[in-house]
Amino acid sequence: MRIAIDAMGGDNAPGEIIAGALESIELLGDKDELILVGPQDVVAPQLPSSKSRKAAISVVDAQEVIEMDEPPVESLRKKRKSSIAVMAKMAKLHQADAVISAGNTGACVAAFQMRMRNLPGVNRPGIAVVFPTFEGPVTICDVGANINCKPINLYQYGAMARMYLKHLYGVENPRVGLMSIGQEDAKGNEMVKKARELIKSDPNMNFVGNIEGRDIFEGICDVAVCDGFVGNVILKLTEGLVDGLFKAIKHELMGEKLRLAMKFKPVISRIYKKYDYNEYGGALLLGINGTALICHGSSRARTIKNAIMASKRFHIEKINDKIIEYLSRTSIRTEDEQAN
Amino acid sequence: MRIAIDAMGGDNAPGEIIAGALESIELLGDKDELILVGPQDVVAPQLPSSKSRKAAISVVDAQEVIEMDEPPVESLRKKRKSSIAVMAKMAKLHQADAVISAGNTGACVAAFQMRMRNLPGVNRPGIAVVFPTFEGPVTICDVGANINCKPINLYQYGAMARMYLKHLYGVENPRVGLMSIGQEDAKGNEMVKKARELIKSDPNMNFVGNIEGRDIFEGICDVAVCDGFVGNVILKLTEGLVDGLFKAIKHELMGEKLRLAMKFKPVISRIYKKYDYNEYGGALLLGINGTALICHGSSRARTIKNAIMASKRFHIEKINDKIIEYLSRTSIRTEDEQAN
Repeated sequence: MRIAIDAMGGDNAPGEIIAGALESIELLGDKDELILVGPQDVVAPQLPSSKSRKAAISVVDAQEVIEMDEPPVESLRKKRKSSIAVMAKMAKLHQADAVISAGNTGACVAAFQMRMRNLPGVNRPGIAVVFPTFEGPVTICDVGANINCKPINLYQYGAMARMYLKHLYGVENPRVGLMSIGQEDAKGNEMVKKARELIKSDPNMNFVGNIEGRDIFEGICDVAVCDGFVGNVILKLTEGLVDGLFKAIKHELMGEKLRLAMKFKPVISRIYKKYDYNEYGGALLLGINGTALICHGSSRARTIKNAIMASKRFHIEKINDKIIEYLSRTSIRTEDEQAN
Repeated sequence: MRIAIDAMGGDNAPGEIIAGALESIELLGDKDELILVGPQDVVAPQLPSSKSRKAAISVVDAQEVIEMDEPPVESLRKKRKSSIAVMAKMAKLHQADAVISAGNTGACVAAFQMRMRNLPGVNRPGIAVVFPTFEGPVTICDVGANINCKPINLYQYGAMARMYLKHLYGVENPRVGLMSIGQEDAKGNEMVKKARELIKSDPNMNFVGNIEGRDIFEGICDVAVCDGFVGNVILKLTEGLVDGLFKAIKHELMGEKLRLAMKFKPVISRIYKKYDYNEYGGALLLGINGTALICHGSSRARTIKNAIMASKRFHIEKINDKIIEYLSRTSIRTEDEQAN
């Protein structure tokens, strides 16, 4: 399997990205191949010369870089030689079986969608993030690929995330919750209410109904479905709040005696580790015709290593085939299609 | 000033509500009057007979109760003798200068809006919640009154919350942030982009631009503006996450030696207290022609006491007059009005 990695994506590129790729090599097979995409003159010197590596590692030259805060579509148009644009093209031409980037999320979504196209039956791809919670992991989809969401998109996010959890994480019959502002049927805006009808009408969805913000942490669902705007706010709010709370605890501990503070450090570390998103190695762009992972901008080597391993499992388990099959059997389509 | 309190609203009614009302009496003036609204036969026996109280306290009979999970509009139509419906009518007839409820939020918003009407110049009221954060309080508006939001609503939420913070909390020139999914101008859905133009075009708004979920905790704005759906998810997510994290810490501490756990308890208590929403005593329904506070369903006596005191200050400081004045001077109107 050939896995292309954006060597220039994210706040810690290229150092941590290359380190993560090198770390993953030990875990990959003989037939696996890593392709670092970025400026040859920057990336190549950072690779060890050793020929004894199990997996092959190579560099594909891409001289331009799309910065984290550039407008996605415009920057793709201007920077055709950017690592993201080059990776997307490689996926299209079947020169890569998976693409991974910790770079500009909007640019990744736009480039991958444009080049790789959607899976048959999928209207819009969605980013699925696995959230560590106190009651086990919850997958949230979408967290930012699609901010002008339609009811059918939410339905498909539920269906796709279920396949992903079932076949990649072994969750037998994942429970789907729909993010709203109250658990009652009547709660929510028009889009959410219509999505609710669609999801409810599919008996195979194991739908637990509307959920509220706090329910994500209550263990009542395995998949939380929402539009990309709401999902993005949830994702960033959670990160900010968790970071802030741990900072506050640290600050309070500074006021205590050093011996007490030191005793408490391992307790806090244990908790922090449980809710550390780096463990989950990136978010899958579900619904794309291929394997695409988008990692957090602050990704470290460990995140990239985990993303590489996740992309391999996603590819091997043929999750996309399972999504296509599921959506081909459901009678729930867009209004346009139903009219035909 | 006559303050009406829903004796039957919330998970801890009527006990904690009545207790909160009684606690507040010591802090109120000679001319203040508390009116508990609920079934006379339930509420009256719980009041002390003492005549030595500074403020007068009375009961207005309302035999019906709207439960927390009832559909708001339907329940108001059916239960015309509910405490919420009776309170709203009292406000309309100027029998109460302020109304406070910890009951069904949707029913409160619908009843207060229907009976009390909007302030001149206000298109839709919004619920403003003061969020305790690590960098000081941030006011979020709206957190659930208006889930089908228009750009003009977001503009007005910013303007109203600013007046509220300035004149009630003494924040000199409150900074307004617009909740989106990236700080760049181009980020966000269509509604948010249009709202951004409106807010930006008012030089008196002290607009800091788009904010992301994590920025709420970073101290970069005093007011965060969003539609009621997003705000409600933010509110409940934060509550759930904070509760969950403290539970996780407690759980980890249980695994430690009792002496160590006991030593750490005050540290955790200090942090928890800082982020405890009960301190803030309810959320203002900004934009309504009167003073209306909606408290959390889990409100305790302390929350109710704080809400009573907040309603008095809101009334005395004539925040509504300041909102009317501000909106009368701005040139930013709805498209309909601009067309005239």
